[in-house]
Amino acid sequence: MSETTRFVRRIPEGDDRERLTCADCGFIAYENPKVVVGSVVAAEARVLLCRRAIEPRSGFWTLPAGYLEMGETVAEGAQREAWEEARARIALDGVLAVYSIARIGQVQVIFRARLAEPGFAAGPESLEVRQFAWEDIPWEQIAFPSVRWALRAWRAASAGPLPAAVLNPAEDARGTRPMMRPDGPPAAGL
Amino acid sequence: MSETTRFVRRIPEGDDRERLTCADCGFIAYENPKVVVGSVVAAEARVLLCRRAIEPRSGFWTLPAGYLEMGETVAEGAQREAWEEARARIALDGVLAVYSIARIGQVQVIFRARLAEPGFAAGPESLEVRQFAWEDIPWEQIAFPSVRWALRAWRAASAGPLPAAVLNPAEDARGTRPMMRPDGPPAAGL
Repeated sequence: MSETTRFVRRIPEGDDRERLTCADCGFIAYENPKVVVGSVVAAEARVLLCRRAIEPRSGFWTLPAGYLEMGETVAEGAQREAWEEARARIALDGVLAVYSIARIGQVQVIFRARLAEPGFAAGPESLEVRQFAWEDIPWEQIAFPSVRWALRAWRAASAGPLPAAVLNPAEDARGTRPMMRPDGPPAAGL
Repeated sequence: MSETTRFVRRIPEGDDRERLTCADCGFIAYENPKVVVGSVVAAEARVLLCRRAIEPRSGFWTLPAGYLEMGETVAEGAQREAWEEARARIALDGVLAVYSIARIGQVQVIFRARLAEPGFAAGPESLEVRQFAWEDIPWEQIAFPSVRWALRAWRAASAGPLPAAVLNPAEDARGTRPMMRPDGPPAAGL
C-alpha cells in the first residue's frame, strides 16, 4: 500500500456494514476473514513442528500452516504449506479442527496428516523442523494458542478413524483472547 | 469500485505471485478465498431450504448460508445466516462438511443443525422457506452443486454422533466444474 493511500470507513449502497473504502479511487476493500490451512503431521506418534524464521513469533514452534491461496482446495493448501515450511510430502486423513480466531479474522482448517514419504527439512520460512514425542513438545515455546489447541485435539484422536472436527476450545470459544508473549506484547496471527 | 479505478497484476516485492494492484494508489487487493458458512437445518427428518430472492440463481433452492463477516466465528456466522435468510434460530451439532470451490475461491463450512425454537419465515433474501422430506427435495431446482453435496452428506449422517467432516465429493474434488444453468450460462457462487 503506498503512503498516499487514504482509506475511509463508510457503508456502501445496498450494504449494512461499514467497509474500508479508498477515498481517492472508490475501491472497496472488503475485509473478509482469511483461511489458514495447516496440519498436525505425525509419524510413529511423533508430531512435526517448525521453528519460525519469520515474524510474528520468530523462533517459536508452529505447525506447517499458512494462508490458503486462490485456486486451491483446503487440502491442496495444507499440502503446499507442509512442503514450503517443512519440505514434507504429506497424506491427509481429514479435518481435525476448524478454529475461528475472530480477533484477527481467521478461520483455520487443520488436518490430521501423515508423512507420505520419509524426510523433511527446513523450508525458507523455518529455522528448523523436528519431530517431537508428546512429552517433549516445547509448550513454552509454541508460537500461537491454536497450535496448542490443534496438538491437544490430535492427542485426543491421534489414531483410528477420525472423529468429528472440533471447534475452538471452551477457554477461548471465539478466538478473541490476546496471546501474551513471554517476552513482550500480545502477538497476532497463526 | 469507481469507474476510474485501474488495476494491474504484478508481483509485489517479497511475494511470489501476481496480485491485483491499484495502478493509481499502489493498494494491493489480496484476493484471498472467502469463507461461506451455512447449515443443513433439520427437524423431524425434514430439511429446511430457502428459495433465493436474489441473483445468482434467484428462484432456486439453497441452504441458509452466506459469507462469514469479520469478527465472527464460523458458528456465529452460520447462526446469523439462518436468521437472516430463514428467520430460524438454530443449534449446531458440528461441522458436516468443508467444501472447496476453487473455481471461485470459496471455502464452505457447512454445519449439521437443528431448529433451536419452532418457527421460520422468509428473510429479505428469500422468496420462501420450507421444510422438505428427503423424497420431496426439488433436486432440479437446487441453486448450487454444493447444496446437493451437503444434503447428501446430511442424508448419510442425519442422526447420531457426527462423523468426520467430509470434503468435496469425488465428482468435483476441486470445485472447478462449472455449473450449467438449465436456462443459460454457468452460474457462480454458493
